[in-house]
Amino acid sequence: MADLLTSDLRASDPATAGPATRRAVLADRIAEAGIDALLVTDLTNIRYLTGFTGSNAALLIRAAGAVDESATFCTDGRYETQSAEQLPEMRRIIDRTCDRALITLAGGRVGFESNAISYAGHRALGDAAAAATDKIELVPTTDLVESGRAIKDSAEIDALGRACAVADRAFADLIDAGGVRSGRTEREMGLDLDHRMRVLGAIDPAFPTIVATGRNSAVPHHQPTDVAARPGDLVKFDFGAEVAGYHSDMTRTVVLGPPAGWQQEIHDVVAAAQQAGRDAVRPGASGHEVDSAARSVIEAGGHGEHFIHGLGHGIGLQIHEAPAVGRDSTAIMAADMCVTVEPGIYLPHRGGVRIEDSGVVRPDGYRVLTMTTKELLVL
Amino acid sequence: MADLLTSDLRASDPATAGPATRRAVLADRIAEAGIDALLVTDLTNIRYLTGFTGSNAALLIRAAGAVDESATFCTDGRYETQSAEQLPEMRRIIDRTCDRALITLAGGRVGFESNAISYAGHRALGDAAAAATDKIELVPTTDLVESGRAIKDSAEIDALGRACAVADRAFADLIDAGGVRSGRTEREMGLDLDHRMRVLGAIDPAFPTIVATGRNSAVPHHQPTDVAARPGDLVKFDFGAEVAGYHSDMTRTVVLGPPAGWQQEIHDVVAAAQQAGRDAVRPGASGHEVDSAARSVIEAGGHGEHFIHGLGHGIGLQIHEAPAVGRDSTAIMAADMCVTVEPGIYLPHRGGVRIEDSGVVRPDGYRVLTMTTKELLVL
Repeated sequence: MADLLTSDLRASDPATAGPATRRAVLADRIAEAGIDALLVTDLTNIRYLTGFTGSNAALLIRAAGAVDESATFCTDGRYETQSAEQLPEMRRIIDRTCDRALITLAGGRVGFESNAISYAGHRALGDAAAAATDKIELVPTTDLVESGRAIKDSAEIDALGRACAVADRAFADLIDAGGVRSGRTEREMGLDLDHRMRVLGAIDPAFPTIVATGRNSAVPHHQPTDVAARPGDLVKFDFGAEVAGYHSDMTRTVVLGPPAGWQQEIHDVVAAAQQAGRDAVRPGASGHEVDSAARSVIEAGGHGEHFIHGLGHGIGLQIHEAPAVGRDSTAIMAADMCVTVEPGIYLPHRGGVRIEDSGVVRPDGYRVLTMTTKELLVL
Repeated sequence: MADLLTSDLRASDPATAGPATRRAVLADRIAEAGIDALLVTDLTNIRYLTGFTGSNAALLIRAAGAVDESATFCTDGRYETQSAEQLPEMRRIIDRTCDRALITLAGGRVGFESNAISYAGHRALGDAAAAATDKIELVPTTDLVESGRAIKDSAEIDALGRACAVADRAFADLIDAGGVRSGRTEREMGLDLDHRMRVLGAIDPAFPTIVATGRNSAVPHHQPTDVAARPGDLVKFDFGAEVAGYHSDMTRTVVLGPPAGWQQEIHDVVAAAQQAGRDAVRPGASGHEVDSAARSVIEAGGHGEHFIHGLGHGIGLQIHEAPAVGRDSTAIMAADMCVTVEPGIYLPHRGGVRIEDSGVVRPDGYRVLTMTTKELLVL
């Protein structure tokens, strides 16, 4: 991993690499939806479509085939310089109330993101639309941008790979430095791991890092406490890095000293289930089928009742996004989707094991991006 | 500060101390607003009114004088145990779609927080209300909870004081350890300071820490880069800690080596302006008057055009909340409001100084909670 210099990890924001292409794809989808334009107010969607990373913005995208197809971006004065650097090619206006400023440029049937505008915001937008020169009809929409985000382009997969590499290296460094040991608290180990990810270039952990020792490892989403690890404990780490907006997600469980029989046993079953889950990921498989492939291994091992969550989820600009991978998931895997595979066995008041990778759906199967060994590490 | 043990800093969540009182005050306000109940969906408001810290919840509060005055809380299954611990005294229901579950328990004119529900969420709520047994009229409201949050109770002021103490000590430790020096990058110094705050008990920095060296110090909200500090640089730190939900906010500017005349001059003017601003804070003063008191000192010093933002803002469960303290602020200061006082002078392409405290409005004036010296530190 010598090529993983810290400066490289933060060199470019891949969200700026393909936004023009992403907007063109969206313009087609807008036309198909029977609207003349879409007013985008979800900030994650705006980052995806423009590369802009500030906290106030809106974006007006016109349907493919419109007389004027160009998009218009709006932010407020605080981000005038930043937006000029991040969006040099886009038509920009500077206004504090971005959505209202953009709606006056539209006409006809204008979609808005019904989950990304408040009741009060919609009322204000309606007033602005009513005062506009052209007649405007506001049309509620959902998932027009999100459905495109499920399939990643190469810049996104590259960013996700870097986010996974930061997590891999931080975890390896933590272990090499003796940072996982008896006497150290969950909180100390978590802060140490988080700090290492930040120093390696993560803007932040991808989500609040889970460190769970001993019986706490039986709680799937346990948050770090001042409990210290003891000899013989399982220690479960579920963590990830955010790099250039993309979120990695990985779980590994280690043991402090020679594993007890039951610890090795549940680890072996989870490892086999995780392998079966990875093997089941391919274009055309449903989220339900992938979940089943792993779950059936755990059930055959006699621990079906101890696997109490879904197998995985999509990752990207958000830590949980489409496609779902679980018992009720009808989502169909497609090439270049990015998903986690994370079975676990949790024995109440005793301990638990989870093994999780982040990876990409490829035409021939699942390509893992988190490279840390999946053997039971004995520390 | 020997009493500031890390464990103490995280021992209790003061948001659980006075929630019953806060709900009683709100019940009066609901009655005054002419509605029968308020459906609270803003998570910060829910934390304030209950102490609950999870990511999905809603709360139904009835008007004072209602036949059944008791409040009902809803969260989903993930938080069943946590909510039982955090809200032992409250009537609770467990349901994934919290607002819709609670609305069926209401009747009459039910207010909702119009800035804290999406367009789609409001539509779904309306459908649920229409299907309820009792006739329900949904009434949009704003600021019913927020207006009460501006005046802090003693548990809140205690938490804010602890958040300020963490920031004070982390900064002192950073300087004592030689962590602010030529050759170190803005990013390195920021990560170091953030890590120290976390180890001292901050759940997180209160906002993205600003470290700005040399000419970057002239940018009010500069984000840390890989630029290294050089001899003679001003280095501006604007940072805070989040403790038990409350956010401290402090700015200090240091100089690496003997200050140049212009550096000392703008620091002296800013320090005098900051003192004047603090002196102007008292119950009955308007946000505009407090801003003016500091601004006039900077104008008299010939730098009026170089003070390009408002003087301060309220702090609490959010890093920016009521009351506003700026040129256009008509907010009236009242005892137990918590505000910042943060004048600055920014000389473009040269450097800048800002000095900021967090503090409490007391009957006799402003009590500073951030205790770090305001002299120009020469390192």
